[in-house]
Amino acid sequence: MSDFIFYKEEKAMNKTLAEIANLVEGTLQGDGEILIKSLSTIADATRESLVFASDKDYFTAALNTDAAAIITGQRHQDCPKSQIVVSNPKLAFARLLEEFDPQPRRPAMIHSTACIADDVMLGDNCHIGAYVVIESGATIGSNCQLLNHVSIGRNVSLGNDVTLHPKVTVYDDCKLGNNVIIHSGSVVGSDGFGYEFADGKHHKIPHIGNAIIEDDVEIGANTVIDRATLGSTNIGKGTKIDNFVQIAHSVQLGQNNILCAFTGVAGSTKSGDNVIFAANVGVSDHVTIEDNVILGARTGVPPKKTLKSGQIYLGNPSRPKDKAIEAELSTTRIPMIRKQLKTLQTKVKELEKRLVE
Amino acid sequence: MSDFIFYKEEKAMNKTLAEIANLVEGTLQGDGEILIKSLSTIADATRESLVFASDKDYFTAALNTDAAAIITGQRHQDCPKSQIVVSNPKLAFARLLEEFDPQPRRPAMIHSTACIADDVMLGDNCHIGAYVVIESGATIGSNCQLLNHVSIGRNVSLGNDVTLHPKVTVYDDCKLGNNVIIHSGSVVGSDGFGYEFADGKHHKIPHIGNAIIEDDVEIGANTVIDRATLGSTNIGKGTKIDNFVQIAHSVQLGQNNILCAFTGVAGSTKSGDNVIFAANVGVSDHVTIEDNVILGARTGVPPKKTLKSGQIYLGNPSRPKDKAIEAELSTTRIPMIRKQLKTLQTKVKELEKRLVE
Amino acid sequence: MSDFIFYKEEKAMNKTLAEIANLVEGTLQGDGEILIKSLSTIADATRESLVFASDKDYFTAALNTDAAAIITGQRHQDCPKSQIVVSNPKLAFARLLEEFDPQPRRPAMIHSTACIADDVMLGDNCHIGAYVVIESGATIGSNCQLLNHVSIGRNVSLGNDVTLHPKVTVYDDCKLGNNVIIHSGSVVGSDGFGYEFADGKHHKIPHIGNAIIEDDVEIGANTVIDRATLGSTNIGKGTKIDNFVQIAHSVQLGQNNILCAFTGVAGSTKSGDNVIFAANVGVSDHVTIEDNVILGARTGVPPKKTLKSGQIYLGNPSRPKDKAIEAELSTTRIPMIRKQLKTLQTKVKELEKRLVE
Repeated sequence: MSDFIFYKEEKAMNKTLAEIANLVEGTLQGDGEILIKSLSTIADATRESLVFASDKDYFTAALNTDAAAIITGQRHQDCPKSQIVVSNPKLAFARLLEEFDPQPRRPAMIHSTACIADDVMLGDNCHIGAYVVIESGATIGSNCQLLNHVSIGRNVSLGNDVTLHPKVTVYDDCKLGNNVIIHSGSVVGSDGFGYEFADGKHHKIPHIGNAIIEDDVEIGANTVIDRATLGSTNIGKGTKIDNFVQIAHSVQLGQNNILCAFTGVAGSTKSGDNVIFAANVGVSDHVTIEDNVILGARTGVPPKKTLKSGQIYLGNPSRPKDKAIEAELSTTRIPMIRKQLKTLQTKVKELEKRLVE
Repeated sequence: MSDFIFYKEEKAMNKTLAEIANLVEGTLQGDGEILIKSLSTIADATRESLVFASDKDYFTAALNTDAAAIITGQRHQDCPKSQIVVSNPKLAFARLLEEFDPQPRRPAMIHSTACIADDVMLGDNCHIGAYVVIESGATIGSNCQLLNHVSIGRNVSLGNDVTLHPKVTVYDDCKLGNNVIIHSGSVVGSDGFGYEFADGKHHKIPHIGNAIIEDDVEIGANTVIDRATLGSTNIGKGTKIDNFVQIAHSVQLGQNNILCAFTGVAGSTKSGDNVIFAANVGVSDHVTIEDNVILGARTGVPPKKTLKSGQIYLGNPSRPKDKAIEAELSTTRIPMIRKQLKTLQTKVKELEKRLVE
Repeated sequence: MSDFIFYKEEKAMNKTLAEIANLVEGTLQGDGEILIKSLSTIADATRESLVFASDKDYFTAALNTDAAAIITGQRHQDCPKSQIVVSNPKLAFARLLEEFDPQPRRPAMIHSTACIADDVMLGDNCHIGAYVVIESGATIGSNCQLLNHVSIGRNVSLGNDVTLHPKVTVYDDCKLGNNVIIHSGSVVGSDGFGYEFADGKHHKIPHIGNAIIEDDVEIGANTVIDRATLGSTNIGKGTKIDNFVQIAHSVQLGQNNILCAFTGVAGSTKSGDNVIFAANVGVSDHVTIEDNVILGARTGVPPKKTLKSGQIYLGNPSRPKDKAIEAELSTTRIPMIRKQLKTLQTKVKELEKRLVE
C-alpha cells in the first residue's frame, strides 16, 4: 500500500447501553452504564463496541469477540456479556445505524452553480448540489436532496423527501413519488428498445410515454428504467431495485418487489406484490407474475408465461422449484444409468448365450 | 401514494381520422370525420383514441375497448369501428407517434455554461445543453443535440443530426456518424480490458486505438463500447444496441445488428449484417458470426467459433437450434429412461431365475 | 456512411528498428535502419509498420502482411522480415504502445469551473477538469487526473497518480490508493442492497461503512462497488475489474484478481489472491474463494461455499472443472443411452418369447 494510509474516521457514539436499549425499545440484560462508542461487525469489534447477532451462530461468534454487548432476538442465560433483547435484532440494528450515521443529510441550500429553469416549482428545505440541472416545467417537492450533476428533464415531477445521488438522470415527463432514493448513474425514462424492420432498415418506434416511480422506491447505482411507448412504465410503491437492473418499456412492477443485480424485465411484463427477483434473472416480454412469486438466481422466463402466486421458480427455462430440482438431479443420475445399462447388457448377453447352448 | 398525484400531460392531437389516414397513406374504412385526440394502448383507450392492432388477437382486443378507430394491416368485414388499413400497421403507428410527440427536439442554442474549446468546429443549428464539455480538436456536425453534462473528448468527431442524451461520454479520438442517438450514461471509447501478467503483476496494455459508431446507430442507456488496442472498434451502420451492452476492444459489428440488454461481445469478435443478439448473450473473443445469424437469449458462444449464415443458435455452449432443443429435450427424458431401465432389470432378473430353475 | 468521413489521426513514430529494439531490450535480427512509423494490427499493417506476434500462427500471419518488422518471442530462422526478439512480446508491445500513445496525460491545471471545497487538500501537479466537484474534507494526492464531471464526496481520500475518467462518482468516506484508474460512469461507495422486511414493508439498512480501493487497481466503465454496512468493502492491490461488474457490500477481494464484464459478487464474499472471474460469473454471498481459483464464464456459485485453492470451477451451480465437464458430457450421451436401451428391450422381449416357447 506504499505510503498512502487508509484510515476510517472513528464514528463515536458515546451512549450508554441503557440509553441504546431505550432507543430500540429493547430489554436490557446486564450493565446499563457501559459506554458504547461504536456499532461494529463481529470481525471489527473492540471493547467499546455493540454488535448484532441475528441467530445462534452469530451469537456464539459475538461471544468470542471483545465486544461490550450484543443485540439479540432471544435472551441467552448465563451470558458473560450484556445483552439488549429485541423482537427483530436486524431492524433494531438498522435503527441504530441510522441514529449514528456520521454523514447526515446534506444541508438545505441551492448551490450557486445549479441551473434551474425559471418556471420550476421547488419545495422547501431542499439541497440542490453543484451543477444540478432542472429543466422547464419540473416540480420538486420539499426536503429533497439532488446531489451534484443530477439532471432533471422537462415536466418531471418529484414528491417530497426524494434523494437523488450524483449523476442521476430523469428524462422528460417522468414522475417520482415521495421518499424515493436513486443512486449514482441511474437513468429513469430513456427510450425503450423498439424498432420495426422495413425497407432494409430498423425504424425507431418513438416513445412518447413516461416512467413512474411510486413512493418509497429505492433504486441502486447504474440501473435503467425505460419509458413506455405509450402510457407509463410503473414501479410500484415500496419496491427495491439493486444496481444494474434493466426495466424495459411498459413494464408494471407491483408493490414491495425485490430485484437483485443484473436482473432484466422485458417489455410489458407485469408483476404482482412482494415478488422477489434474485440476481441475474431474465424475464421475457408479456409475462404475468402473480403475488409472492420467488424467482431464483439466473432464472430465465420465456415470453407470455404466467407464474403462479406464491410459487418458487428456478432454471432456464424457468420451472416450478420441484420440477427444476428434479431436472437438475436427473442429469446427475446419468453416470449411474450408464453403469446399470452396462450391467444389464452383460447379463442379457449371458442369457442369450445360455439359451443358444 | 400519499398526497402526491401522478398525472400525465394530455397529449391532444385533434386530427380527423381522414387526416390521419392521409398521413400514413392508409385506406380509410368508416367515418373520416371522427376527431381523434390521442394515440392509445389497448389498455388505456378512450372514446377519442386511435389504437393499433398488429394481429388478429390484438384486433379482437381493440374491438372490446372504447377506442374510436383501429389501425390494422387487414381490412376486417362488418367491423363496428372505423379502420385505417395499411400495409405495415406498426410502422404507420410509429410515424404517428413521431408526428404527435409532445416533446419535440430541443431548440438550437448554446447554453451559457457549456465549456467548448476554442478550436472546436461546431455545425449549424445545434443544441448544446448545460454543463456540456467539448474538448480541443473536436468536430460537431449540424443539427446535433448534446444534452446536459455530455462530455466530448479531444479530437472526437460527430456527424450531423446526432443526439446525445444527458451524461453521455465520448473518449478522445472516437468518431460518430450521422443520425446517431446515444442514451444517458453510455460510454464510447473507454480502454479495453487487457493486461499481461509478468513479474507478479498485471501490466496494462495501453489502448491507442479508437471506437467508430457509423450512421443511424442507436445506443441505449449505460452501455459501454470500448476502444481498440490498435485500430478501431466498429459499430456498423443502422445497428441498434439496447441498455447494458458491453462491446469489447476491436469488435467489428456489421450493419443492422440488434443487441439486447446484458449482451457482451468479447475482444476482436466480428459479426456480419442483420445479426440478432437476444438478451444476455455472451460471445467470447475472436468469434466470427456470419450474416443473419440469430442468437437466442442467454446463448454463450465459446472462443474462435464460426457461426454459420442464417442459423439460429441457442444454449450454453451455443449449438444450432435443432441440436440445442434436442439436448434440452434429452434431459427431460431421463425420468422415463430410469423407469424403462427398472422394468428391464426386473424382467432380466426373472429370466435369469427361470433359466436357473 | 454518407458524406461523413471517419479518419484516424496518423500516429507517427519515426523511430528506427534499432532504437525500438533498444527501448524494449530486445535482440534485433535484420536491418536496424528501417524507419518504423506505426505500431499496427496484422490486419492494418503497412510497409512502415511494426507488428507483434504472440505465437506461431500470428507469426505466419504477420509474414503475409506488408509489415516491415515483427516483435516475436522466438527467433525465426530464414525469416524474410526483420525481427525484434524479446522474452515477452506482448509486454514489449505494451511498452511501445505506451511510448507512442498520441494522447499523453492531461496538463496540470485546475479548470476554472471546478468546484472544490475550501478545506480540500490537493496535491501537486494535478489535472482537475471542467465541472469536477470535490466536497469538504477530501484529500487528493499528487499527479492525479480528475476529468470532466467527476464527483468526489465528503472525506474521500485519493492517493497519488490516480486517474478518474469523466463522470466517475466516489461517495463520502471512500478511500482510493495510488495509481488507481477508474473509467467513465463507475461508482464507488453506493449503498449496499440491504433491507429488513417488517410490518408490511422493506426497511432500509443504513450503510455507514465505506469502500476502499487499494493501489494499482483499475476499474472499467459503468462498474459499481458498494460500500459496506459497517467496516469496508475492499478491493485488493493490483486487482483489475472490467466494465459492468457489481461488487456488493462488505466484499473483500484479494490482490491481482481479474474480474470480467457482467460479473457480480454478492455480500461479504471473500477472494484470495490471483483469482480469475471470467465473464458473467455470479458469486453468492458469504462465499470463500481461495488463492488462484479460476471461475469459468457464466459460473454460478451458491451461498457459503468454499472454493479450493488453484481449482478451476465451471457451470451453474459451480463444480470443479472435471465434474462440470463430465456433467456436460453426460447429457450428450442421452441419445446413445436411449438407443442402447431400445436394443436391450428388443433382446429381452425375444428372450422372453423363446423361454415361453
